[in-house]
Amino acid sequence: MPYNELRKDYLLNRWVVIATERSRRPTGLAKPRPENPKTANCPLCVGNEHMTPPAVLLLQKVNGKIKRSQDPQSGERSKNWLVRTIPNLYPAFTPPQTPQDTAQIFSAENFGYAIGHHEVVVESPNHDEDPADAELSQLELLIDAYIDRYRKLSVKSYVKYVSIFRNYGLEAGASLSHAHSQVIATPMVPPTIQEELDASKTYHLKQGRCAFCDIIEREAKGPRLILANRDFLVFAPYASVNPMEFWIAPKKHAANFLGLTKAKQAAFAKTLKASLGALKSVVNDPPYNYGFHLSHNPLDCDSYHWHLEVYPKLATWAGFEKNTGVYINTVPPEAAAEALRKAIEA
Amino acid sequence: MPYNELRKDYLLNRWVVIATERSRRPTGLAKPRPENPKTANCPLCVGNEHMTPPAVLLLQKVNGKIKRSQDPQSGERSKNWLVRTIPNLYPAFTPPQTPQDTAQIFSAENFGYAIGHHEVVVESPNHDEDPADAELSQLELLIDAYIDRYRKLSVKSYVKYVSIFRNYGLEAGASLSHAHSQVIATPMVPPTIQEELDASKTYHLKQGRCAFCDIIEREAKGPRLILANRDFLVFAPYASVNPMEFWIAPKKHAANFLGLTKAKQAAFAKTLKASLGALKSVVNDPPYNYGFHLSHNPLDCDSYHWHLEVYPKLATWAGFEKNTGVYINTVPPEAAAEALRKAIEA
Repeated sequence: MPYNELRKDYLLNRWVVIATERSRRPTGLAKPRPENPKTANCPLCVGNEHMTPPAVLLLQKVNGKIKRSQDPQSGERSKNWLVRTIPNLYPAFTPPQTPQDTAQIFSAENFGYAIGHHEVVVESPNHDEDPADAELSQLELLIDAYIDRYRKLSVKSYVKYVSIFRNYGLEAGASLSHAHSQVIATPMVPPTIQEELDASKTYHLKQGRCAFCDIIEREAKGPRLILANRDFLVFAPYASVNPMEFWIAPKKHAANFLGLTKAKQAAFAKTLKASLGALKSVVNDPPYNYGFHLSHNPLDCDSYHWHLEVYPKLATWAGFEKNTGVYINTVPPEAAAEALRKAIEA
Repeated sequence: MPYNELRKDYLLNRWVVIATERSRRPTGLAKPRPENPKTANCPLCVGNEHMTPPAVLLLQKVNGKIKRSQDPQSGERSKNWLVRTIPNLYPAFTPPQTPQDTAQIFSAENFGYAIGHHEVVVESPNHDEDPADAELSQLELLIDAYIDRYRKLSVKSYVKYVSIFRNYGLEAGASLSHAHSQVIATPMVPPTIQEELDASKTYHLKQGRCAFCDIIEREAKGPRLILANRDFLVFAPYASVNPMEFWIAPKKHAANFLGLTKAKQAAFAKTLKASLGALKSVVNDPPYNYGFHLSHNPLDCDSYHWHLEVYPKLATWAGFEKNTGVYINTVPPEAAAEALRKAIEA
């Protein structure tokens, strides 16, 4: 057929045109990387802890063991840390000031208060740390911090979702260049996640199986597979809306990552590093965003399957995407997978 | 209340945090404009018509009157034009090659062929034409071309939606700097539009009124009003996801713009120019995307109300937006409206 393909996401009502007529080889996407302006006085660097609020989580090495603590609310901030999580100085969502406030978050159908949390996970004392090159032991601490914050925030009565995400590079929205991720806890389940949860539930009711378990089984055998190890699968999704997009999903069914053993956390860190490393080498260290898809609602246990979605920022969403919610992707996911697979094997 | 506001769109399940803690005055958004690289051999400039396909619509001035024609499929292309519409050289959607093809566009739930049309409207012989500064007579021709293409494409059996949009500036995705818009006809109603159509229909069934007529009535009296004239209302929508976003809606109910008289087309051109001019002066000529929301489905006549949405590109959608479908906007629409209103009055 001489036409471009129109593909729909596994679960979301989201369509993409795989525009092969416009397509470029993945390596053709490489752009010169703008130098990140080195902040003279980076608020996330060691020694500048006083520029940010007290840490809600500190991971430190003490006598060869990892110690987990917090900064006191007043007084000195700890400087000897490996990973440091702090409240965002300019939060989009803020904790309730009185218990009563949480009872009236949504006072109208189209209005609410942005009650929740907004934290910054400083991933390393090393300003230029990059997960693609980081020590595995450091990445394991980062995963540890993600899980810790998810555990602490998701139990709060007013928190309906916890979004854990990372912006890499200025063009992907990273306004600070020091290696960091963000955690935002929201008082509602966000639309994209809710749509995925609903579609997963519908699939589960109809098929008696988890949609994602089926996706994993299918993609493990196909041309979009990037990496498979004992615990995780990395693949380019069928209806990738971003050039070189890939997802990392656990083979074992679970709605969130709270049940991961230390060994599986380490396996996830290794899988993440290998995939981001492949992306970096194939496309000259591109900017990207990644975000976890998770549910802590017990009703989603059987039907939902957590995963990480990585969106390289190699195209500009313009008028058509914004007008319609239909995307144009010039790199077929099969070509993306092949390039990333080869880079990992090399 | 000390919290940021969470607002939901009038119709879509789309939420935005109005992050006043992070807010900047509209004029603080101004960035230096990168010089558009002047293309030495612009394919859209007069004299280079042979670099693009034959025009499907030419608007020319002949003996003081506007003449409407096409280029022949072979032979010379017309050079004496004011507005020229051509098939996109790198189309995302392409016309059916046989009548049979249209019968099998969607062969599976998640798969289709990108059958449709993808055209470029060259807005002026003047490479650097900008609707904010253009002659009104030229803008009227542009609106005429939009309406012509909508009329011609929307009647095709395989066309379910016609998206008419404009990318202004490199950061907003305009890969050619010559003033142009695009028209994409798709074989399905896109998700964003479908959601709006559905919500409008639900509202109409319940309230017996058009949702947009009610929105217009409300916004005409409120702090988000930017401009009101006899035929059109310009306002910053309640849940603007973009800083300085504004919408232009006709006061008279209609599902699309096919019924606009010449006088109302001229009024729309004037309203568009005034609004874009205000944006340009308040925020130093920012990049933007705009897109029409229209329906040509007779079933939407009573419930749907056409309008134009203008999205200045003054922020980067990053991990949180992409992970959740919730947006963070640092400029309250009330502040955006005030600044734009003052610029228009000045």
